[in-house]
Amino acid sequence: MGQYNAPLRDMQFVLHELLNVESELKQLPKHAEVDANIINQVLGEGSKFTSRVIFPLNHSGDREGCHFDKATLAVTTPQGFKEAYIQYRKAGWPSLPCDPEYGGQGLPMVLYNSLSEMLNSANQAWYMYPGLSHGAYECLHAHGTEEQKALYLPKLVSGEWTGTMCLTEAHCGTDLGLLRSKATPQADGTYRITGSKIFISAGEHDLAENILHLVLARLPDAPSGTRGISLFLVPKFIPNADSTLGARNTIYCGGIEEKMGIHANSTCQMRLDDATGWIIGKPNKGLNAMFVMMNAARLGVGMQSLGLTEVAYQNALVYAKDRIQMRSLSGIKAPDQAADPIIVHPDVRRMLLTAKAYAEGGRAFCSFVALQIDRELNHPDETARQEATDLVALLTPVVKAFITDNGWVATSEALQVYGGHGFIAEWGMEQYVRDARINMIYEGTNTIQSLDLLGRKVLMDNGAKLRKFGALIQAFIEENGTDEAMNEFITPLADLGEKVTKLTMEIGMKAFQNQDEIGAAAVPFLRVVGHLVYAYFFARMAKIALEKLDSGDTFYKAKLATARFYFARLLPETAMLIRQARSGAANLLDLETELF
Amino acid sequence: MGQYNAPLRDMQFVLHELLNVESELKQLPKHAEVDANIINQVLGEGSKFTSRVIFPLNHSGDREGCHFDKATLAVTTPQGFKEAYIQYRKAGWPSLPCDPEYGGQGLPMVLYNSLSEMLNSANQAWYMYPGLSHGAYECLHAHGTEEQKALYLPKLVSGEWTGTMCLTEAHCGTDLGLLRSKATPQADGTYRITGSKIFISAGEHDLAENILHLVLARLPDAPSGTRGISLFLVPKFIPNADSTLGARNTIYCGGIEEKMGIHANSTCQMRLDDATGWIIGKPNKGLNAMFVMMNAARLGVGMQSLGLTEVAYQNALVYAKDRIQMRSLSGIKAPDQAADPIIVHPDVRRMLLTAKAYAEGGRAFCSFVALQIDRELNHPDETARQEATDLVALLTPVVKAFITDNGWVATSEALQVYGGHGFIAEWGMEQYVRDARINMIYEGTNTIQSLDLLGRKVLMDNGAKLRKFGALIQAFIEENGTDEAMNEFITPLADLGEKVTKLTMEIGMKAFQNQDEIGAAAVPFLRVVGHLVYAYFFARMAKIALEKLDSGDTFYKAKLATARFYFARLLPETAMLIRQARSGAANLLDLETELF
Repeated sequence: MGQYNAPLRDMQFVLHELLNVESELKQLPKHAEVDANIINQVLGEGSKFTSRVIFPLNHSGDREGCHFDKATLAVTTPQGFKEAYIQYRKAGWPSLPCDPEYGGQGLPMVLYNSLSEMLNSANQAWYMYPGLSHGAYECLHAHGTEEQKALYLPKLVSGEWTGTMCLTEAHCGTDLGLLRSKATPQADGTYRITGSKIFISAGEHDLAENILHLVLARLPDAPSGTRGISLFLVPKFIPNADSTLGARNTIYCGGIEEKMGIHANSTCQMRLDDATGWIIGKPNKGLNAMFVMMNAARLGVGMQSLGLTEVAYQNALVYAKDRIQMRSLSGIKAPDQAADPIIVHPDVRRMLLTAKAYAEGGRAFCSFVALQIDRELNHPDETARQEATDLVALLTPVVKAFITDNGWVATSEALQVYGGHGFIAEWGMEQYVRDARINMIYEGTNTIQSLDLLGRKVLMDNGAKLRKFGALIQAFIEENGTDEAMNEFITPLADLGEKVTKLTMEIGMKAFQNQDEIGAAAVPFLRVVGHLVYAYFFARMAKIALEKLDSGDTFYKAKLATARFYFARLLPETAMLIRQARSGAANLLDLETELF
Repeated sequence: MGQYNAPLRDMQFVLHELLNVESELKQLPKHAEVDANIINQVLGEGSKFTSRVIFPLNHSGDREGCHFDKATLAVTTPQGFKEAYIQYRKAGWPSLPCDPEYGGQGLPMVLYNSLSEMLNSANQAWYMYPGLSHGAYECLHAHGTEEQKALYLPKLVSGEWTGTMCLTEAHCGTDLGLLRSKATPQADGTYRITGSKIFISAGEHDLAENILHLVLARLPDAPSGTRGISLFLVPKFIPNADSTLGARNTIYCGGIEEKMGIHANSTCQMRLDDATGWIIGKPNKGLNAMFVMMNAARLGVGMQSLGLTEVAYQNALVYAKDRIQMRSLSGIKAPDQAADPIIVHPDVRRMLLTAKAYAEGGRAFCSFVALQIDRELNHPDETARQEATDLVALLTPVVKAFITDNGWVATSEALQVYGGHGFIAEWGMEQYVRDARINMIYEGTNTIQSLDLLGRKVLMDNGAKLRKFGALIQAFIEENGTDEAMNEFITPLADLGEKVTKLTMEIGMKAFQNQDEIGAAAVPFLRVVGHLVYAYFFARMAKIALEKLDSGDTFYKAKLATARFYFARLLPETAMLIRQARSGAANLLDLETELF
């Protein structure tokens, strides 16, 4: 059923050589003591835990799926899931990036990020249980009252309780303004909440003794639309003041979905019948509060596809070295065998390198964003914090959409390397593709991410945030513009940077005339920006690789080849995307609906 | 579980208005009587049959899958499959394109092609049972002895018996030269065949009383590699001379595979234990004979993805008109509803139009190729036959790879239109994506198709076949070059034509130095050729649409808009592909295998 080994060497390269995390963290008082040793130790432990405990449950969990008991409304996760969760909890993994005030270890996000990649490679469906809990932790940490935090956070930090986000209803997913669940205030300050939610990941399961649901609902006097949505904490069991479990709340799982993938994660229909809830944040400001969790979840979804890209690549690589089939067109490469290993064939290499480049580009990118989150949360200088905030806001939709689209391509290419065996469940490759498909949809479809990027993050501030990222690129270009060896990277990077600037202005002008121009350009625009980001990071990685090429460590040779592949084979997608983005809205809108 | 209605209007447009099939068939003595009436009648009946009988079994068949009984080694197809097959057989559908000498109706391939699209839209997994039989019919018809044909063909034509192709073994799929199954000649002229085959679609099932396996195996004195492979007919039951069933042959199903998709088609491991077989064609020339079936199957696989593209589009369209979510960015479009139908959003339209354009382009293309097959088989003039033969040879890998790659994109976009619901099995969209995935793999992976196109079909004859297709394009350009209204189509078509010529020469030159340059360029090259083909057909369709725009039939307005969408949004992929194809082999080969 395949294999997974955390790509420790590349993770260390990204953290220590590309991002200089140790010295970056020294600027952040909270993390000043986190040195390379600590980082490498955590990575090493994470690697062991994910490959030994979590990965072996991935394929079996997919085949078995979750079980829903109509009589008790209970959900049982696949064999081994609960035991693995207990091990995870006992080892203290959930508390890694959490606030020490509530029992956390207070380690930086940039480190948690690497762990998160490993867990997603090992088992996306399993990791969604604790992964969503962490989002609930962040939301409550940012918006809960002191009392709420004292009561609930230690349990989320320890992993004894898990969390969910209950947004979607059958008639509204993207358009939360339509939601109908109702919350009625009670004399004791609590609320009675009634409604139906669907697609609630980890809404019910047997891993933890309690589940904290973060539920969006409307107050009786709420304005219509998104301005009338409030956020409530609705625990499955209402905790007593000492956090022992009290009464069972009236929020129930009504069934679980049969899905294309992530079979081992329970996707629940949830019914609330006058369930007791506590408001989080201010009335009618629920979406603001939920956005903390949603932004964390969006980055998390990008990480899911990064994880799948890596594990699919690893397995395709093993197969491509092992499987013999046909002779190389340029002459026999393995004369002692009846055929050459398929990795000699150029197109097999194209498929492998596509996955490899998307994994390595995504790793650099996500680690960078995670580091910006650490700066945003902890940098003593306000300007630095604001710059980090802007970069995270700008890049979050790119992480979500670009990496999940790439993950779909990469897992599919990795499957293709197996030929017919890729389609057979037993080999495990088709699961990666099926699992990867949801990542383009949930937490805001990739179209929504693109509109968020182009409409809100770029055009709404006249490109100011985009220019902040552009300034990093510009500085790098100026620093290396005279280095002949870097020419092959700097020239296309600078060229793309200029094109993005022009494209942005052009769309902005068109949007003055017709707002639909934004919707017509958003998806290719986001992918262009994604490539600009990857071109920047691959150029930076290539620079390091060039400097250390003679070190004797062949890692740098491989890194340089991957960067070259990226520029030669993947970056050219921008030539298509820019044409598409510039083609305007008319080719989409001219056809009357009834003529489709 | 969705819906399917054959796109009769567009099929008629392609056959009658684009290809002028009636007058084309008049040139072919065998089909001179086939007029528009007959064609439309068959299409109408096919439409009813596929939407009423076959489509309703698609989702249930996927959920149930096939059953293998370890005790009896029997395979049972999902509920309803057998009854539908009996109806199909009794209605005479299998005999449609077959030779009247063996009970066929002798109708042209270009008509069978449309029926085939419908059946694939309705239920790919079901249609594979009779679809493969037709391939076996063609192989036997071309290479069987008179005795073999007399005994077997009437049963294949009537659908009482079905056929398979048994090529793949566990250690060889692409590389048939490695195959190990052995055939030992017997004194009575038969052979005893022993070996193990895998991935045998429809290898065992309960739809027909007998199954004719076409099996590749080696004679004792056979040269190694592909020059030592012979083809054998191995019936499940050995027929008596009067074609009643005789003894059970020793070819057995050892198990069926659990797969990503096409669950309702049995993918069998087949064991041959001294099974009795009859040689088809000459010893050691088995691959030549099998290629008749393989070429038919390759076109058939393209049709599978065309079918999936169409049905996925139809369902996404229904959903996009029905589902309300968010307001149009350019102002409220459905003031009487709480939100606008999602088809108002530009990016939803981009997804729909992508599927629509790939369906319509694929339909025109496949119908054209099917017509060439009719010309190849039946044209009285040898030059015309040869030209048709060359076009079919050139375009077969393009049908297989381009349409299946597009089908993967299109079904995935159609799923995405559904948002979260697209991922849920109940809605049926995710099945189309899963089913579409195999089409990029079987009957020669899409990489193999690309190598066939670039290496064998284009470079091996110095581009002669490609120039034959180019001449059709050139004639069309010259005919319409001065028509201003056609400018928007003619200019990019002519431009791409020139680029393909240059690209072909460039790769040809590089290949002199290093044959790996072919493997490095083949996949993007095939897609460029695919776009050249689609650009040609969309330009031709646009011309007709422009001429009839004022006819009052809004069909032409839609056709024109689809053509414009194709040129604006899909054709620009060539800008990426040409860069990739030109980037050369070094970016794929420079990395040593051990450094991956």
